[in-house]
Amino acid sequence: MATPFKRIGIFGRTGSTSVNETLTALIQLLELNHYPVCVEKETADAMGHVHLPIVTKEELGQHCDLLIVVGGDGSLLHAAPIAVDQHLPVLGINRGSLGFLTDILPAKIDKIPDILQGNYFAEDRFLLTAAVQQNDKKIFENHALNEVVIVPDRTPHMIEFEIYINKQFVCSQHGDGLIIATPTGSTAYALSGGGPILHPQLDAIVLVPMFPHTLSHRPIVVDGNSHVEVILSRKNKDHSRLSCDGRPGYTLSRGGSITIQKKSLSLKLIHPLDYQYFETLRSKLHWGKKLTKKG
Amino acid sequence: MATPFKRIGIFGRTGSTSVNETLTALIQLLELNHYPVCVEKETADAMGHVHLPIVTKEELGQHCDLLIVVGGDGSLLHAAPIAVDQHLPVLGINRGSLGFLTDILPAKIDKIPDILQGNYFAEDRFLLTAAVQQNDKKIFENHALNEVVIVPDRTPHMIEFEIYINKQFVCSQHGDGLIIATPTGSTAYALSGGGPILHPQLDAIVLVPMFPHTLSHRPIVVDGNSHVEVILSRKNKDHSRLSCDGRPGYTLSRGGSITIQKKSLSLKLIHPLDYQYFETLRSKLHWGKKLTKKG
Amino acid sequence: MATPFKRIGIFGRTGSTSVNETLTALIQLLELNHYPVCVEKETADAMGHVHLPIVTKEELGQHCDLLIVVGGDGSLLHAAPIAVDQHLPVLGINRGSLGFLTDILPAKIDKIPDILQGNYFAEDRFLLTAAVQQNDKKIFENHALNEVVIVPDRTPHMIEFEIYINKQFVCSQHGDGLIIATPTGSTAYALSGGGPILHPQLDAIVLVPMFPHTLSHRPIVVDGNSHVEVILSRKNKDHSRLSCDGRPGYTLSRGGSITIQKKSLSLKLIHPLDYQYFETLRSKLHWGKKLTKKG
Amino acid sequence: MATPFKRIGIFGRTGSTSVNETLTALIQLLELNHYPVCVEKETADAMGHVHLPIVTKEELGQHCDLLIVVGGDGSLLHAAPIAVDQHLPVLGINRGSLGFLTDILPAKIDKIPDILQGNYFAEDRFLLTAAVQQNDKKIFENHALNEVVIVPDRTPHMIEFEIYINKQFVCSQHGDGLIIATPTGSTAYALSGGGPILHPQLDAIVLVPMFPHTLSHRPIVVDGNSHVEVILSRKNKDHSRLSCDGRPGYTLSRGGSITIQKKSLSLKLIHPLDYQYFETLRSKLHWGKKLTKKG
Repeated sequence: MATPFKRIGIFGRTGSTSVNETLTALIQLLELNHYPVCVEKETADAMGHVHLPIVTKEELGQHCDLLIVVGGDGSLLHAAPIAVDQHLPVLGINRGSLGFLTDILPAKIDKIPDILQGNYFAEDRFLLTAAVQQNDKKIFENHALNEVVIVPDRTPHMIEFEIYINKQFVCSQHGDGLIIATPTGSTAYALSGGGPILHPQLDAIVLVPMFPHTLSHRPIVVDGNSHVEVILSRKNKDHSRLSCDGRPGYTLSRGGSITIQKKSLSLKLIHPLDYQYFETLRSKLHWGKKLTKKG
Repeated sequence: MATPFKRIGIFGRTGSTSVNETLTALIQLLELNHYPVCVEKETADAMGHVHLPIVTKEELGQHCDLLIVVGGDGSLLHAAPIAVDQHLPVLGINRGSLGFLTDILPAKIDKIPDILQGNYFAEDRFLLTAAVQQNDKKIFENHALNEVVIVPDRTPHMIEFEIYINKQFVCSQHGDGLIIATPTGSTAYALSGGGPILHPQLDAIVLVPMFPHTLSHRPIVVDGNSHVEVILSRKNKDHSRLSCDGRPGYTLSRGGSITIQKKSLSLKLIHPLDYQYFETLRSKLHWGKKLTKKG
Repeated sequence: MATPFKRIGIFGRTGSTSVNETLTALIQLLELNHYPVCVEKETADAMGHVHLPIVTKEELGQHCDLLIVVGGDGSLLHAAPIAVDQHLPVLGINRGSLGFLTDILPAKIDKIPDILQGNYFAEDRFLLTAAVQQNDKKIFENHALNEVVIVPDRTPHMIEFEIYINKQFVCSQHGDGLIIATPTGSTAYALSGGGPILHPQLDAIVLVPMFPHTLSHRPIVVDGNSHVEVILSRKNKDHSRLSCDGRPGYTLSRGGSITIQKKSLSLKLIHPLDYQYFETLRSKLHWGKKLTKKG
Repeated sequence: MATPFKRIGIFGRTGSTSVNETLTALIQLLELNHYPVCVEKETADAMGHVHLPIVTKEELGQHCDLLIVVGGDGSLLHAAPIAVDQHLPVLGINRGSLGFLTDILPAKIDKIPDILQGNYFAEDRFLLTAAVQQNDKKIFENHALNEVVIVPDRTPHMIEFEIYINKQFVCSQHGDGLIIATPTGSTAYALSGGGPILHPQLDAIVLVPMFPHTLSHRPIVVDGNSHVEVILSRKNKDHSRLSCDGRPGYTLSRGGSITIQKKSLSLKLIHPLDYQYFETLRSKLHWGKKLTKKG
């Protein structure tokens, strides 16, 4: 049995009735089980009237030892950097359909007291840090649980760039950009872009070319500890943009360089003991179930 | 500097004039440098008249500490299981165009004396062992440096099968079969089948579905130490076939089960010190070179 | 209103209980509506005891003006060449799940009397004729409603071949073979192989390379009246096989040539008036439905 | 022999030394052969000093009966709408490497006098017209020889939209957008996006989904005379953008509708008599050449 959780923080996607209903049911359940509960400020503001302690997202770590996120995978992506930096494990409750990261359905929240007592499976999911250097000085840094994306600032322009892995030149590419994804992100945007599925416990990063002009480019999977560098061509017609987990991003100059590496701290994702990664995949991708005994 | 090599064994694809020419030039070079040389029996038979000691492939390990393979990647695939079981490192000389495994061009064989003296880079490449069980007894086993393939015994029938990873059910699939490839094999047949490129130093296995009936199947990359099991449906119209590295293979009954795992011994592949993996990829796949300084 | 049908022939996949039940229900319905009905001989044999006229498949055209096929798309593929040569329109009843060709579900067979009275939509679907020449003499010919496939006789060998369209050289390819599909076949095997969906009313043929060694090969769509020729390399290690609509096929010698062209007669496929092609696609491929009015 | 050309207009990508050299050589050649030559104004401005009549692009049709475009495929895309509306055939001279549209290399311009005398092959290439309606009024219209693209106004947002073909609902999609390409455009951006190659003489349009969230979406090829409509979801987070042939484009409101149809006038593209479409494909995509006679 794993370490039980004692004080619970609540974080939820704001502005949705179904999320609010689940938040209310969750808080009732936690109070019934005598857990001290605090609510993240923006979540509390969206809920309207909250009788519980309200804390800013930066202070969550001082008031709880588990963060429960209610919403879709997007909410968990939003909460991830906050949780990671404060060493807070995260448990995700989905608002409707099954997610890759939020694997508890609202109808199953009665599983939670059991989880809190230590009956859970904790899984480390690493993040990527994307940094932009200029004249040997770091001028931008951001983190991604799913993926770092480098795209033209304005479509439909193409961009040209060089890729280096551990300082070795890989190739130059001309196209719509590049996705650099974690195993967690391999089932998100990178999958739509033709990337492979990386098992979450594989220590690897995948580079997925976006609409490459040269047709023989393929996704490349490298060790999770690799140092990836992307250098933008000085000849690009326009600026490029760096985006982490779909957030608006940072504008990159022509000739600029971006380095992408594993972040030292990783996210601790809490699952119920009956969690099965492949069951989520089968369900979301309509894959074939077990053949019948006769099969 | 790495351990120098002292006694050299020669292995070559038989029946090609260009390979014979390179074999002859190689032997001259080795003799000029006073290396004891032995020739594998089938290679010697194909060369015609050989004034050197001739040994069977099973005895190579007793007479040499390095096996030089002349031919294409196919020759190296053929030599690999022989070399691995006798703990013999392998150096590959290509017969014309660059290969992924045979990275010394005939025109560059003058690099070899330097390599033999210890100026080389040794890389471990793991193999897969595919085994067939029946009534808890192993009835077939074979090894693959590139890939294990499970296909219908007769095209154009489709087959149905279940996949398990570390005893966890992944999915059932209906299609033309399944490729299970090593990083080494990820640039061979699996790449034609839509699989990603796995860096050779990544400890991973990729499962590539072949023409799956369900369009949402994708290649899955799992840890290199995973236990993969494929169970054939009892309803398949015909038998299936198991093939390692493109060899003719073994006929599998309906309902049969195949397990695939990393082989305990791996191949030690010898490269010149200036070897660069990505240079081979760029060259063979027509990828973009470095952009100009102005670029 | 289209021409009503007067005499009905029945053709069904043999050996399935669910097909037999639908066949029985269908015959009752037709008799209740006073239609003369005949049953194809193999179908009748599989049903066991049939009180109706039994005719060989070659004589169907003399006894009916519509062939109703009960089973899956495979049954309709089987019936297609028989129906085409006897100018018989075909109506397909599926045995369970929706098919691309058999678009009436067993639960909806009460639509049939209305269809027989002329309330239907008749669609022409063309077939391909694959022919093998030797010394200017045709030595083999077969027809495909879905696709012609050229593959190695024994996997996992690869084959090499040249493609010509209207006598113009297209390219040589090295791989697992080639699929040449009609619009009808574009949602079958060719789709698993990465081909595009061709609308059934588009007069076009698609060539889909199978696991090509060169990664820049792509499906090519040409006019439906094109003359396609495939010439097998004399250097192939083994024979190749020509297969039409998944039937076992014909063995092709090294250096042999296959021509593929539209068959002059096409299949007349009968649909209910509310038939919608894209509805079948959405249903079978889990595509998105209409967005809500708010959407 | 086709109709000879008598008066030549010149159009070139501005600002490149190599284009200027080819323009100069071309003008010398035409004058040597006593052809009246006029130069489009922007081209003349970029060349610096031109001793020939200079005309605006709108007046080209009054002064010449053939437009020679010097540059890459991009220059020809730029010239296409100008030429089409003035019924001017176009001949493309590439500035270096072979293009799909500009198939005469600078080293081969001595072929041109022969072409002008009528020894050419004229090929019709159709364009698409994209129009935006609001309250039953057309508020925007543009034309594309290659493709119409609908994308989010700001990456990395996704957009949701419905597709209709000939007023029949096809599906809703959620992703990075949609490419609607002509056969001419099928070897441009649509090819990078996973679309098939459509033979230029095929009367068809291809719809290529861009990074669709649902993995079973595939390119769909429909008749060239189809009426395609795309309706943007009202729920999209941001505006979308409509772009023709890579031009900056038009901003689309949430809930907006775009119709795409074949333009009534098509481009007449002039090729030398030895032009072969597939030769360009082989050359640009590194496809296999003819096998040797022994092959």
